[in-house]
Amino acid sequence: MVATGTTQSNQAAQFDLKGYLSVKQQQVEAALDRAFPVVYPDKIYEAMRYSLFAGGKRLRPVLCLAACDLFNGTPEMSIPTACALEMIHTMSLIHDDLPAMDNDDYRRGKLTNHKFYGEAVAILAGDGLLAYAFEHIVEETRNVSADRLLKVISRLGRAAGAAGLVGGQVVDLECEGVKDITLDTLNFIHTHKTAALLEASVVSGGILAGGSESDLQRLSRYSQAIGLAFQIVDDLLDITSTQEELGKSIGKDANVEKATYPRLLGMEESKRQAQQLIEQAKAEVAGFGEQALPLMAIADYITARKN
Amino acid sequence: MVATGTTQSNQAAQFDLKGYLSVKQQQVEAALDRAFPVVYPDKIYEAMRYSLFAGGKRLRPVLCLAACDLFNGTPEMSIPTACALEMIHTMSLIHDDLPAMDNDDYRRGKLTNHKFYGEAVAILAGDGLLAYAFEHIVEETRNVSADRLLKVISRLGRAAGAAGLVGGQVVDLECEGVKDITLDTLNFIHTHKTAALLEASVVSGGILAGGSESDLQRLSRYSQAIGLAFQIVDDLLDITSTQEELGKSIGKDANVEKATYPRLLGMEESKRQAQQLIEQAKAEVAGFGEQALPLMAIADYITARKN
Repeated sequence: MVATGTTQSNQAAQFDLKGYLSVKQQQVEAALDRAFPVVYPDKIYEAMRYSLFAGGKRLRPVLCLAACDLFNGTPEMSIPTACALEMIHTMSLIHDDLPAMDNDDYRRGKLTNHKFYGEAVAILAGDGLLAYAFEHIVEETRNVSADRLLKVISRLGRAAGAAGLVGGQVVDLECEGVKDITLDTLNFIHTHKTAALLEASVVSGGILAGGSESDLQRLSRYSQAIGLAFQIVDDLLDITSTQEELGKSIGKDANVEKATYPRLLGMEESKRQAQQLIEQAKAEVAGFGEQALPLMAIADYITARKN
Repeated sequence: MVATGTTQSNQAAQFDLKGYLSVKQQQVEAALDRAFPVVYPDKIYEAMRYSLFAGGKRLRPVLCLAACDLFNGTPEMSIPTACALEMIHTMSLIHDDLPAMDNDDYRRGKLTNHKFYGEAVAILAGDGLLAYAFEHIVEETRNVSADRLLKVISRLGRAAGAAGLVGGQVVDLECEGVKDITLDTLNFIHTHKTAALLEASVVSGGILAGGSESDLQRLSRYSQAIGLAFQIVDDLLDITSTQEELGKSIGKDANVEKATYPRLLGMEESKRQAQQLIEQAKAEVAGFGEQALPLMAIADYITARKN
């Protein structure tokens, strides 16, 4: 029996997300560790590992695994793509932190890649992670048809490139110091910088396990909503968190006159919109029944998180 | 009737390579142009186009097309992969030119990408090209089975990453200013920086058109040989060319104490080894008959080229 939306929402609140995340994160850690043995030239493999294992929450991989589970897929179908998503995400963090971009010295309380390995190796580590993501999906995925894998590869390429992460970062950089950013522009930045890869994570999990076109559209709307909510919450945390909780410089956005949701909408309206997006996201997947509880709980977690 | 090696070698010398290259290059130019319309955010698409259309000889795409032709493949099978190879090659040029890497202001007589667009956009243009390469292969290839496309994607990912271009560049940077580079290290640099993507170009053409495993091994040996010869000739040209012919700063390698073949082996021995590699390469593909003439003529062209 499929539970009603309200019942499910309560179930999602009671769902043991911490335990669920822990199991999935361990699967991802182990697979990423196996995927990156250190061989000659050691420095580049060490540099890729340095940022891959810098304490990320593995949100994108977990979303991919959860979406695959929704259609009774297995870990051997989804874990390589989950790892590839983390490689692409890590690449974008390494490159965004570079002096020519956001010029960050710390991330998650650790020196950024270029501060530790130098700029040249950091650039190359990002390139290596991006290139390997695609090879890894092809070489490691089991029990998925070649047609489905090609769809996943195309989605990931799109989400990583100028139609996704790269395009969002370009507009973000262009807007630095500009005072009259419109909400449309801010939305463009975040649908590209954040939501695109989250969407690719969720939808690729669905593709791997054979979700229908309408299932994939639901997953796409779910992930676009959590992606935007995620960014609004990020902006709010930048204002309200302590440095210890966040592990990075606080108030940096305000210092560089960066466009943020609180600046454009105010704190209260930003909170309200984030909450509304989370409700929309949960409503999209409620129809999948109990198997959607992880995705619903993850949506709740995005507004509740402290870092 | 299959011609003998010697007859074929003469035929290769008489083959109208200039006309052949011109036809293939035009196909590649047109496809690359269609692949990169300028849309919002314009700057990143313009930056990718700036380096993509900076006068490259399209050697990697042409090799892919020629290898595909060898097994009676068609352009619609090979052109998307040919374009993807040029995107990956262009990415590596843009990133290698960055101040943190080789710090070059000019390439092919034009300002390098970061001198024209700034470092941030140059880094992102490279990322965008790399990511799009994989999406483009999936979305644009026709009449090739999904299994073959996955093999091509895996090869290209490997050639672009730490096991290829990235690994070669890391060792190259580590060796800068080091006086006692061994021939093994120099070979590692160039089999990774140059030969790996040339090999992926030729072998992927063979995969797309359905070459057998032993055919692909021949193509792999052919391309490794021309790849190393290409680099030896590059090193020789750096010493002997005028700046006008080469379109970049001359004698730069010597200035920064870079390991080169002429430095390690001497001019005459370097020339002899390049010629020997070209003969080996031609012998590998001679068995394919007349359809191998373009590949043989391209091998000859590598030692004969002036820039």
